[in-house]
Amino acid sequence: MTRVGTHNLHKIISPKSIAIIGASDNPDKVGHVIIKNNIDSGYGGKIYPININSSGTIMGYKSYKSILEVKKQIDLAVIAIPAEFVPDALEQCGRAKVGGVVIISGGFAEIGRIDLQEKVVEISEKYNLPVIGPNCLGVTDTRSRVDTLFLPTFKIDRPSIGGVSFAAQSGAVGSSVLDLIDSEGFGLARFFSYGNAAVVDEVDILDFLAKDKETKVAVFYIEGVKRGRELIKIARRCTKKKPIVIIKGGITEQGSKAASSHTASLAGSSEAYRAVFKQFGFIEAKDLKDLLNLSKIFTTQPLCTGKRVAIITNGGGAGVLVTDAIYNNGLELAELTERSNSELKKVMPKIVNVRMPLDMAGDADYSRFSSALDIVSKDENVDAIIAIALFQTPGADSKVASTLIDYGTKIKKPLIVLSIGGSYTKAHKSMIENGGVPVYDSPADAVSSLAALIRYSRYVNEENY
Amino acid sequence: MTRVGTHNLHKIISPKSIAIIGASDNPDKVGHVIIKNNIDSGYGGKIYPININSSGTIMGYKSYKSILEVKKQIDLAVIAIPAEFVPDALEQCGRAKVGGVVIISGGFAEIGRIDLQEKVVEISEKYNLPVIGPNCLGVTDTRSRVDTLFLPTFKIDRPSIGGVSFAAQSGAVGSSVLDLIDSEGFGLARFFSYGNAAVVDEVDILDFLAKDKETKVAVFYIEGVKRGRELIKIARRCTKKKPIVIIKGGITEQGSKAASSHTASLAGSSEAYRAVFKQFGFIEAKDLKDLLNLSKIFTTQPLCTGKRVAIITNGGGAGVLVTDAIYNNGLELAELTERSNSELKKVMPKIVNVRMPLDMAGDADYSRFSSALDIVSKDENVDAIIAIALFQTPGADSKVASTLIDYGTKIKKPLIVLSIGGSYTKAHKSMIENGGVPVYDSPADAVSSLAALIRYSRYVNEENY
Repeated sequence: MTRVGTHNLHKIISPKSIAIIGASDNPDKVGHVIIKNNIDSGYGGKIYPININSSGTIMGYKSYKSILEVKKQIDLAVIAIPAEFVPDALEQCGRAKVGGVVIISGGFAEIGRIDLQEKVVEISEKYNLPVIGPNCLGVTDTRSRVDTLFLPTFKIDRPSIGGVSFAAQSGAVGSSVLDLIDSEGFGLARFFSYGNAAVVDEVDILDFLAKDKETKVAVFYIEGVKRGRELIKIARRCTKKKPIVIIKGGITEQGSKAASSHTASLAGSSEAYRAVFKQFGFIEAKDLKDLLNLSKIFTTQPLCTGKRVAIITNGGGAGVLVTDAIYNNGLELAELTERSNSELKKVMPKIVNVRMPLDMAGDADYSRFSSALDIVSKDENVDAIIAIALFQTPGADSKVASTLIDYGTKIKKPLIVLSIGGSYTKAHKSMIENGGVPVYDSPADAVSSLAALIRYSRYVNEENY
Repeated sequence: MTRVGTHNLHKIISPKSIAIIGASDNPDKVGHVIIKNNIDSGYGGKIYPININSSGTIMGYKSYKSILEVKKQIDLAVIAIPAEFVPDALEQCGRAKVGGVVIISGGFAEIGRIDLQEKVVEISEKYNLPVIGPNCLGVTDTRSRVDTLFLPTFKIDRPSIGGVSFAAQSGAVGSSVLDLIDSEGFGLARFFSYGNAAVVDEVDILDFLAKDKETKVAVFYIEGVKRGRELIKIARRCTKKKPIVIIKGGITEQGSKAASSHTASLAGSSEAYRAVFKQFGFIEAKDLKDLLNLSKIFTTQPLCTGKRVAIITNGGGAGVLVTDAIYNNGLELAELTERSNSELKKVMPKIVNVRMPLDMAGDADYSRFSSALDIVSKDENVDAIIAIALFQTPGADSKVASTLIDYGTKIKKPLIVLSIGGSYTKAHKSMIENGGVPVYDSPADAVSSLAALIRYSRYVNEENY
């Protein structure tokens, strides 16, 4: 099977004009919701509603009975009509020389209509037409503001502009992760929900994202890979240049069966996938939560030169749990230089026992955090820092948050924050994350994310993972 | 060493009268904060401020130079004065026949002043006086509303009344968990932060909580156990009657070193602890997040008769990830009876493939959830249910939330919910949890919590864990 190249995904994700096939004045129709969402998102390009029963205008826009009637350059055509009518509409998109197509409609291989899906592939090949879907949510992009997701906007927190791109075979997984990006403190570049992957698949998207300047970290939820060799070929080229985080749905035999009825994906043993991920430098997420945890450390923190971690904390017990997690993850506590220790003794109050983890006591305020970060970040025996800021304590306030942002963005070593708590803590977590420093809410999550960054740094700097 | 019995912890946690030694009009003093917090929390008993320099009133209450001057029954004395003055104050508490003492002050074994700590133990034994601390936050209780925590109330979300009691050796861990209970959707019974555990230790608290009617689930953060035999003795008696969740800080060698400088705890190998936990039916939490996850399933859901889990979902990809997690945790997907399958075929739309996981499609509304829950919960091949409700989808709304509450509280099998997303989702998560059904935000967390409930159910029903 010859495959469509990926050079044209740019027109799908950053279109200057879009046509919606299946547009309608009826607010219950998917085509209506998509146009409305593009208006709401502030999409700035042209919008052409297409409906075979069009009487001239739809939702205030001039409308057309067929895409062939538009007679202007259309970058992206979105198809949201019953499956049986999709091949004809796609044929017309090909003849109209559109830049790319998203087929929202379901009713193809996932319910056994392999014949219909094969027609989609044939037409795509005939016109060299990049097609996303069918059976998907499509795309959104924080810069072009195109938005083909047909979900009610009030149900999803739309993310701000950032460097993480996310591609999900499953629309449900895609939309729930999209909804979480904002509260997890990082921003989005591109979003692809690619469903049955009849034409454009994870290989094409990976190729596109690997070269994409807006994408600092590419994150994938996949259910199956049909073109393993190509995936590996691209991975060889890009995983040392850009972190690629991946989670495989259907990693167990039974999960894989569930995936095959869902997006008609082919199975593969979990061992095979994991071995490939590891060998070629993919960063495997263990769970959706992990995927978010990894996204935020990889998009904000620099690579790391070793595995010696300094802990500074305003709570002893949390320092103990982070220490446990450090050794459970194969990292180690940094041993500070003599010079650092004597400097710390000068600036810390007497009740502070100068050792790792550095328990600065429950009354530590921003100046104590600042002194400790200053000394520890300069220490040559320290590769990365975990700052535990428990905001229940009397000294922890927004000045501590701003101190953490200050050091977290200026030093050349990874710095992550652990803050556990309710509403006062969560308000400070948002402040710190808006300042560009990741905050975790559990010792295990914080350390396993840092451990992944350290493993990836070693992979980038050496031959082997 | 003879030890004080635990029968008197009741007076510490549900005191009708409290004396605060170290009370002050100065808002920066710990004794001031404690009185203020008891006023704010609505503590209904008598408050007696004690300060050696008292001139008659403190914070509007009649005050005393010594607890011996009060000459009324005092259930709880809280000591918040410098360590060197603590033994004298404690001696006076003994002579005044108080019901129990909380020593907030630090400056004892944790900084090497073992001599001072030994004096505390001696005096406690002389008067048969239960003493919590030193170097701790003390106690709070949602019913008596006593509150000896000296942390600013605006920094901590105080939990509502519930069935989970929490005891933490570390004040920092204790207060951050306390702060999270409310947003994690369950309520608190008792809270103990017991610091150096000079007198009252985890054994005494476990003994108390095991017998306590208000406590449905007891949760412990411990850094070391000095009386292993006694702990096991109590465990034999109570772990089959009441779930005891435990997390051990300092489970690695290096974490254990950190713990010893923190609350002067003795170390023990992680293998030894884990073996004991497992053998005697403690439920070990892997992380603080896990501890909260376990608390909410154990306090809301019934025991389980097997490990066959039904999944109903409005998103295919999430169903795949939960299926993976089920097999990764040693559970299995339920195989529904023929009868259930044919009933489901009748009520589900044609696009729904009737199999496990049951993907009810993205347009599933409350009536589809209700039909599925009705059939699945009655199926004899189903031991537990995970309902995945992704609130980004068009059909998911507050009626779905109320359907989940309805089934989650009326059926006799465990039912937990997985909902992943931002603000709209979080609002519905709160609704469902306020209705008494636990909601998780990641497939791995949901399934590992259910797996712990299933393991514990087996332990309760059989001889071995």
